[in-house]
Amino acid sequence: MKIGILGTGMVGRALARRLVELDHGVMVGARSKASESLAKLGELDGIETGSFADAAAFGELLINATGGIHSIDAIASCEPSDLAGKTLLDVANLLELRPTGPPVSLASVDNCLGVQIQKTFPDSKVVKSLNTMNCNVMVDPSLVEGDHVVFVSGDDSAAKGAVVGLLRGFGWRDEQINDLGGIETAAGPEMIMPLWLSVMFARGGFDAGPFNFAVNSG
Amino acid sequence: MKIGILGTGMVGRALARRLVELDHGVMVGARSKASESLAKLGELDGIETGSFADAAAFGELLINATGGIHSIDAIASCEPSDLAGKTLLDVANLLELRPTGPPVSLASVDNCLGVQIQKTFPDSKVVKSLNTMNCNVMVDPSLVEGDHVVFVSGDDSAAKGAVVGLLRGFGWRDEQINDLGGIETAAGPEMIMPLWLSVMFARGGFDAGPFNFAVNSG
Repeated sequence: MKIGILGTGMVGRALARRLVELDHGVMVGARSKASESLAKLGELDGIETGSFADAAAFGELLINATGGIHSIDAIASCEPSDLAGKTLLDVANLLELRPTGPPVSLASVDNCLGVQIQKTFPDSKVVKSLNTMNCNVMVDPSLVEGDHVVFVSGDDSAAKGAVVGLLRGFGWRDEQINDLGGIETAAGPEMIMPLWLSVMFARGGFDAGPFNFAVNSG
Repeated sequence: MKIGILGTGMVGRALARRLVELDHGVMVGARSKASESLAKLGELDGIETGSFADAAAFGELLINATGGIHSIDAIASCEPSDLAGKTLLDVANLLELRPTGPPVSLASVDNCLGVQIQKTFPDSKVVKSLNTMNCNVMVDPSLVEGDHVVFVSGDDSAAKGAVVGLLRGFGWRDEQINDLGGIETAAGPEMIMPLWLSVMFARGGFDAGPFNFAVNSG
């Protein structure tokens, strides 16, 4: 499939490399075509690069991997006709970077990025997923043992099906994929970020090995 | 140990029954001594009952099991001298009940109940724990398989030690107890509530069997 990725941060780069390995066509878009990350990505076999709008025009399925507080602006810079009818996988988190200390989550039930994107771009089919873990685990769940989970939220069944297909491609097993319901349920996974950060820091900070949340039963 | 529990809801009742089984002295306090739940609790062997203030006067260690949006008022109705210097285990969540649909979490990084309680009652030693699961799992973690977790946040090491002692009494193993750091880290476990509710509804709602979050490693 042709996939347009918005964002050249760690997450966008990890997704792009893995999707190319899996034989998808990939274009990564940045705010500025002069982006250094974008230039480095362009040197990799099979990854095309361009603006956010270029990536949206290229992709049959789009991925929002921009920083959450910039996501609406990034998506808004694309042609509406390049968004309409397409699945838009949103993997971003509303994190505010501070001069010192860890990033601070702005998420709440009333401030859910997935919901805001769906409302702002009603012709897109927004699916929230993968935002609850490190990007290495996103694209290779075998890095973590057991039935750790990935959540999926969205209003459109076919779009969720397309995202589940990508997840399976990354190696997620069906018993790990938790469909929570409509896009309003994206608030839950988005609000897990402060706990994720605390757990990471309790495990040694940026040197913490791979980990992910699981849901254990009786 | 003599333990004063504020709140006669499902959580307060489950904690009271289990703590009495474990040979602690227990007094449960309610807003009104005419409370029906309180009267029923008073019929159980070994459970004393009274007002919030009576429970605070009774306990060497206090537990806030009131509804989160009422917790500050409930604790404020106790004598300051009955709070001073005591460990106050806060297990509450900021949930707003709506006429229809599930309760809605008001939690965010800037709206953390544990932090608010610590700021409002600076002479208490507030420890947040146990708020991320059903009350049956709180007091009997063997209901769920594997190394599912309980989080602990608080500024005072001795108070956290006292709470860890209670957790061990309930059956929590040390490898399940995750000390996240100071009370400001309570925002993480508090913000998990919307995800917890979505997972519960995805598992069949109030008939969902026992479950709890785990943190899996590589």
